[in-house]
Amino acid sequence: MATQVIVLNGGSSSGKSGIARCLQAVLPDPWLVFGVDTLIQAMPVASRLSGIEFAPDGAVLVRPEFRALEAAWIEGIAAMARAGARIVVDEAFLGGAASQQRWLTALGALQVLWVGVRCDGAVAAAREIARGDRITGMAASQAELVHQGVRYDLQVDTTHTEALDCARMIAARAQ
Amino acid sequence: MATQVIVLNGGSSSGKSGIARCLQAVLPDPWLVFGVDTLIQAMPVASRLSGIEFAPDGAVLVRPEFRALEAAWIEGIAAMARAGARIVVDEAFLGGAASQQRWLTALGALQVLWVGVRCDGAVAAAREIARGDRITGMAASQAELVHQGVRYDLQVDTTHTEALDCARMIAARAQ
Amino acid sequence: MATQVIVLNGGSSSGKSGIARCLQAVLPDPWLVFGVDTLIQAMPVASRLSGIEFAPDGAVLVRPEFRALEAAWIEGIAAMARAGARIVVDEAFLGGAASQQRWLTALGALQVLWVGVRCDGAVAAAREIARGDRITGMAASQAELVHQGVRYDLQVDTTHTEALDCARMIAARAQ
Amino acid sequence: MATQVIVLNGGSSSGKSGIARCLQAVLPDPWLVFGVDTLIQAMPVASRLSGIEFAPDGAVLVRPEFRALEAAWIEGIAAMARAGARIVVDEAFLGGAASQQRWLTALGALQVLWVGVRCDGAVAAAREIARGDRITGMAASQAELVHQGVRYDLQVDTTHTEALDCARMIAARAQ
Repeated sequence: MATQVIVLNGGSSSGKSGIARCLQAVLPDPWLVFGVDTLIQAMPVASRLSGIEFAPDGAVLVRPEFRALEAAWIEGIAAMARAGARIVVDEAFLGGAASQQRWLTALGALQVLWVGVRCDGAVAAAREIARGDRITGMAASQAELVHQGVRYDLQVDTTHTEALDCARMIAARAQ
Repeated sequence: MATQVIVLNGGSSSGKSGIARCLQAVLPDPWLVFGVDTLIQAMPVASRLSGIEFAPDGAVLVRPEFRALEAAWIEGIAAMARAGARIVVDEAFLGGAASQQRWLTALGALQVLWVGVRCDGAVAAAREIARGDRITGMAASQAELVHQGVRYDLQVDTTHTEALDCARMIAARAQ
Repeated sequence: MATQVIVLNGGSSSGKSGIARCLQAVLPDPWLVFGVDTLIQAMPVASRLSGIEFAPDGAVLVRPEFRALEAAWIEGIAAMARAGARIVVDEAFLGGAASQQRWLTALGALQVLWVGVRCDGAVAAAREIARGDRITGMAASQAELVHQGVRYDLQVDTTHTEALDCARMIAARAQ
Repeated sequence: MATQVIVLNGGSSSGKSGIARCLQAVLPDPWLVFGVDTLIQAMPVASRLSGIEFAPDGAVLVRPEFRALEAAWIEGIAAMARAGARIVVDEAFLGGAASQQRWLTALGALQVLWVGVRCDGAVAAAREIARGDRITGMAASQAELVHQGVRYDLQVDTTHTEALDCARMIAARAQ
C-alpha cells in the first residue's frame, strides 16, 4: 500500500525542512508539509512565549497548555491524511519515544514512513549560527535527545549528505 | 454552547488577518488561527504556481488539484476543532456560497460563528498598495465576490473601524 | 530644485512603512526606501539584542555601540542620495530633535522634505496588536516622544487617513 | 592596516549569506552585512520586477534603471565604511570582472578583503531546491559566471566545508 504520511524527526538545524522541500520536488504527487513551526505560527503571540519556553542553553520546555493544542493539531493532521492528502510531517520529538507514541496513536491505520534525520551535533550547531534565526544552543541540545527510543523505517544523515540526496533515499522507500 | 470555530470571510486586504490576531489577544483562551495562506505555504513550490493561478487583473483561478488538497485541509481543521482546539479560520470564499457550503459540511455539529469582513473596495485596494506584498488587483476583484450568497451571524467593516474594535465586537458574540 | 530625500518620522505602528511603499507607487521615478529596520537587519544577531534594548514597557534603549554604527549608516544614506538615488527614509526619532540634528548634519545641502507621521497613540497601540510582530507597548511609548522638538515641512495623520492618501499629499509637495 | 570591508562574491545558493552571518559571530567587532538583496528590498515593488528580470532558465538580466540605483548604492556602502562601519558585502558579480571594477572604484583606498565563495554547480542547484525560495536555475547559471575574471585574496568552497569553517578561514585573514 502506498505511503500516506512521511514523518521526519530530527533536532533543530538537522536539515529536516530542506529535506521536506526536496521531497515535495522529487515525489510525483503533491505532498503537503506541516510541522511544529506551522502550529507555533498559528498560536497567539502571547502563547508562543508562554506555552513554549526557551531555556538559556537552548533547551525547550513545553507547558501543559501547549500539549493540549498539540494533541488537537496531531488529530487534525491525521484527519487530513485520512481525507486523502499526502503529508510530510516535519517534527522534533522533544519527548523522544513518548512523542512518537502520540503520533502513532493518532495516525492509526495510516501507512506511515518513519524517518530519522540525523546530523552531527557540532555540525548542526555550526549551521544554526549560519542560519542566524534560531536561539543558539537548540541544535546541540536536541541532536541526540529527539531520537531517544524512537523507532524508524529509515535514517538519513545530513552531516555529509545533501538534503536532495537524503530526499531521494526517502522517496525510493515511500513509493 | 461555547463557540468552537470562528470563520472570518473577506476579500484580500480586507483586514481579516489583523482581526484574527486581535481576536487571539482579546479572547480569554488560546485560539489557533489557520487560513488559506497556511495551506498555500504547505504546498510544493511548483503547485503554488500551478494549483493557484493569478490572472493579470489579480483574479485567482483555482485548479482541480488544489480543490482536492483544500478539501482534505478543511477536514483536518474540523477534526482539530472536534479534538478541542478553538480555531479562527481566516478565509476568502472565492466561490461564495459554494465555498461556505464546503466548510458547513465539514464543520458539521461544531458551534461556528460566521463573520463577514467587509471593506470598501477602493480602500482595500489602497491598503494592498501600502502592504506591497500582494499582487495588485486582488483586493478590488475579491471585495464583493467572496460575499456572494454567503450567510453570516455577524458582519464587520474595516473601512472606518480598527481591527481591534472589530475583534471586540466578534468576541462579544463568541463567548 | 527637486526633492532628493523624503524623511518620514513617526512612532512604531504609526504607518510610516505603508506610506513609504505608497510613495514608491505614486512617485514617477524609482525611490529607494531605507529605515532603521534595514540597519537592524544588517547588524549581528547578538548586537541586535545588546545594541538595542527593549524595556518591558516597550521603550527602546539605545547603547553607544549602536550609535556609532547608526552614524556611519546615516553618512552612507546621505552619500547614496548625493550619488543620485532618490531616497525615502523611514525613521523613528527616539531622540527627538537630537535625532533630527544627526540627519540634518549628514544630509547637508541635499534637498530634503521633512514629514511628520502622526497617529493617535491608542489607535497605534491597537494596530500594533493587529500586526502581532512588534513588542507590545512600543506604539504607545513612541507616539509623542519621536516628535518632540522636531521641525517638519508637512505633517500627515494616519488615524483617519489611509496611507495612500497620506502618500499623495506628500508626493504633491515632493515634486 | 585592519580590514574595513570584506567582499563575498559567489553565485546564488553558494552559501554567501550563511558565511556572512558566521563572520558576524566570529569576528570580535560588530560588522554590518549588506548585499544585493538589501538593495532589491529597498526598491519599489514594480522596479523589482522591471529592473531585474529573471529569464526562464534562471539567468538574471539587469536593466539600465537598476544599474544607476546600484551605482548609488555602492557609493553609499563605501561611505559607510569610510565613516567607520566595518562591512561585509554579500554579492553576486553577474558581470564578473566588470562588477568587481565598479566596487574597486567606489571602495578606493579602503582596506578590502576579496573573497570568492565557490560551490559545485550541481550541489548549489540541489541546495536551491532545499531552500525552496529561489527561482530554479539561478544556482546553476551563476556558479561559474560570477567568478569570470574576478581577482581574490582568498577563496573558500562550501561544497564540502561548512559555512562556519569558511568564515573562520576568512576571519583569520581579516584581522
